[in-house]
Amino acid sequence: MFSDSSGDPFARSGELFARAANVIPGGIYGHVSPAAVLPQASPYYAERAKGPYYWDVDGRRYIDFVCGYGPIVLGYQNEEIEAAAAEQRAKGTIFNHPTARMVELAEKLCTLIDFADWAVFAKNGSDVTTWAIQVAREHTKRKRIAKVAGAYHGVDPWCSPGYGGVLPEDRALIDSFPWNDVEAIQELFEKQKDDLAAVIITPYHHPVFADQVFGDPEFFAELRRLCDQHGVILILDDIRAGFRLSVHGSHCVYGIDPDIACYCKAMANGYAISSCVGKHEYKIAASKVFLTGSYGNDAVAMAAALKCIEILERDDVPGRLERAGSRWIKRLISLAEQYEVSLRASGPSAAPFIRVDDDADFLKTQAWAASMIAEGVFIHPHHNGFMSWAHTDAVIDEALELAGRGFSRLVGATV
Amino acid sequence: MFSDSSGDPFARSGELFARAANVIPGGIYGHVSPAAVLPQASPYYAERAKGPYYWDVDGRRYIDFVCGYGPIVLGYQNEEIEAAAAEQRAKGTIFNHPTARMVELAEKLCTLIDFADWAVFAKNGSDVTTWAIQVAREHTKRKRIAKVAGAYHGVDPWCSPGYGGVLPEDRALIDSFPWNDVEAIQELFEKQKDDLAAVIITPYHHPVFADQVFGDPEFFAELRRLCDQHGVILILDDIRAGFRLSVHGSHCVYGIDPDIACYCKAMANGYAISSCVGKHEYKIAASKVFLTGSYGNDAVAMAAALKCIEILERDDVPGRLERAGSRWIKRLISLAEQYEVSLRASGPSAAPFIRVDDDADFLKTQAWAASMIAEGVFIHPHHNGFMSWAHTDAVIDEALELAGRGFSRLVGATV
Repeated sequence: MFSDSSGDPFARSGELFARAANVIPGGIYGHVSPAAVLPQASPYYAERAKGPYYWDVDGRRYIDFVCGYGPIVLGYQNEEIEAAAAEQRAKGTIFNHPTARMVELAEKLCTLIDFADWAVFAKNGSDVTTWAIQVAREHTKRKRIAKVAGAYHGVDPWCSPGYGGVLPEDRALIDSFPWNDVEAIQELFEKQKDDLAAVIITPYHHPVFADQVFGDPEFFAELRRLCDQHGVILILDDIRAGFRLSVHGSHCVYGIDPDIACYCKAMANGYAISSCVGKHEYKIAASKVFLTGSYGNDAVAMAAALKCIEILERDDVPGRLERAGSRWIKRLISLAEQYEVSLRASGPSAAPFIRVDDDADFLKTQAWAASMIAEGVFIHPHHNGFMSWAHTDAVIDEALELAGRGFSRLVGATV
Repeated sequence: MFSDSSGDPFARSGELFARAANVIPGGIYGHVSPAAVLPQASPYYAERAKGPYYWDVDGRRYIDFVCGYGPIVLGYQNEEIEAAAAEQRAKGTIFNHPTARMVELAEKLCTLIDFADWAVFAKNGSDVTTWAIQVAREHTKRKRIAKVAGAYHGVDPWCSPGYGGVLPEDRALIDSFPWNDVEAIQELFEKQKDDLAAVIITPYHHPVFADQVFGDPEFFAELRRLCDQHGVILILDDIRAGFRLSVHGSHCVYGIDPDIACYCKAMANGYAISSCVGKHEYKIAASKVFLTGSYGNDAVAMAAALKCIEILERDDVPGRLERAGSRWIKRLISLAEQYEVSLRASGPSAAPFIRVDDDADFLKTQAWAASMIAEGVFIHPHHNGFMSWAHTDAVIDEALELAGRGFSRLVGATV
């Protein structure tokens, strides 16, 4: 299973990567691939997936704790989602006009999300975060945007975590402040309040290469108070966690009162859709900011989203993910202790980041991740993971058994 | 067929629009909908589609000469595309990693497109036009971008045709020059040559509310010469026409020699994908500009693109669309003459813009479009149309017969 006739367990991966390097800049791009930091250890290319499992091109099976970086919330190939998508697909996907699915989905979001009076749809998270700051600028007639230092809001130049091709001018109107730093936001408002269109935050801080950090209630409260006082719009970027923690939006979980919010990943179990919703008072501004796309009215993605959100609500999937994540984290940490490895988990249990403690350079975490991956448990060494509905107790037990072998491998390799 | 029991032929459309207006800014947004300029005449919402036909929510059938604004190049519900997509879907769509489909598709584009040495993929046209200018800035270490006045390159603030939420700062580094104006580009280069990273053009000029205009050979040649002389990157935005006019890219049709090009609409017959390709010398810069998205490795869209491009090449679909478009345009213009209506067609026959001549305010064209739509032929009054493989001679004949009734209606209504 772990090697072909050449004896190289990454033979097909290596062959594809060599071909890719010839025709794709960097060979593999996008979400920083573990294959870049764990060469010959992490999978390079996926072949197929089902439920909580996926297989790489060399035939290895993984229990997946990353879930496509979030979209897969009900498990791969969920039958109800696929049936709903197929039903719409038989009618059509892309048209000259929207379909009733767009209206139904907007109504559904406005019903579920307490502050939402309207919704629009797009394809990527970046589409809606960039559009949301434009709506804020249109409404306030102000220019500056404040964001949390190190927070991810997409790939557009104003917020991209990369530096290539980004100009100082792209960020000249972007201020940043540290997460949870009440004094820093007070100072920022003092300085910029007359020019500030919006503050954009995530429902908790989820940087890469760092622990996730919840927000203090006084941080959220002070942000709201300052925004109200100075006519600044509070945008919630709930792309990573939205619908995974609550079908009513993550702001309900953490006590945030946003004006506008962006959603994406867990909306449609892998069908490409993102959304921005907002309060009534921003609807006119929203109608003035041009938004379109070649596939913007994709009715299949909207049908999948309607079904996905229906299932999330019907089966209390967020509650189940919270319990499954808690079980996984607790038992994994206990198991690690048996091998004298100290693990540290942060963030919501449904989307936890788990790493080795006392590991500033992430090398121990990378070694641990490599040992887990070698035994068929896919975790990411520096990005948070995601739980899905397919992560049943039996699957978690199976993962824990494989994780035990991973720890043996790790301890054998490093002690 | 044209009315429900209430007698209102737009009863269901009106009901949906009223619901939409309640929860969606503007009710219908995106590509400027004919429903906005032709209320109670143009369809508002689509219900289903097959081949060259679609049906609106009030049960009216249209022969479609807009094709979803371009993605539908083989007709709605093409069986080969759907089979290829279904085969990949059974394996999976979104994964933690790319699949072999990404490598295969990049190889295919690099084989078909003469100057292309690499390719990347995204979801919207805007994703790749914005990324392409970042690559140019990264490679040249210069800041300014020149574009054609009135050219459409997407919805991002540097190029959006809307004004809502767009700041002067978003366009402070964007120059523009008139299409086909050799002197203007010479002046622009004289002034900006040391700061200019890229010039972005379309293969022909395709504004809205205006005729399409081909490029003069000397315009393209002078652009290439100036770019070479001053180290400026020539980006071709081939999103609207790419693969529809030639599987080798529209630059082959018009004698353009770009460094980087962007594709989208006709790549996958409605599956959401866009691409940027480029010459080898820009590959390192391309690898440095961050590009990702929640659905960036969508293997179903890539499988659909592989099959779509295979069919376009195998069946010489571009040649067929050119012939079908020519036939439609010539016979429609002749037919119009019988009713003393003078029509004017511009741009490529596979994506023609047809309007009433001597009609500066487009009111005559709108009246004509309304009469065509009333008889079941969907054309757009101020955006170019698109031909598909499903527009057989028989379908065009059927459309011409309906168009004749449309002209009778128009002449009856206006004379």
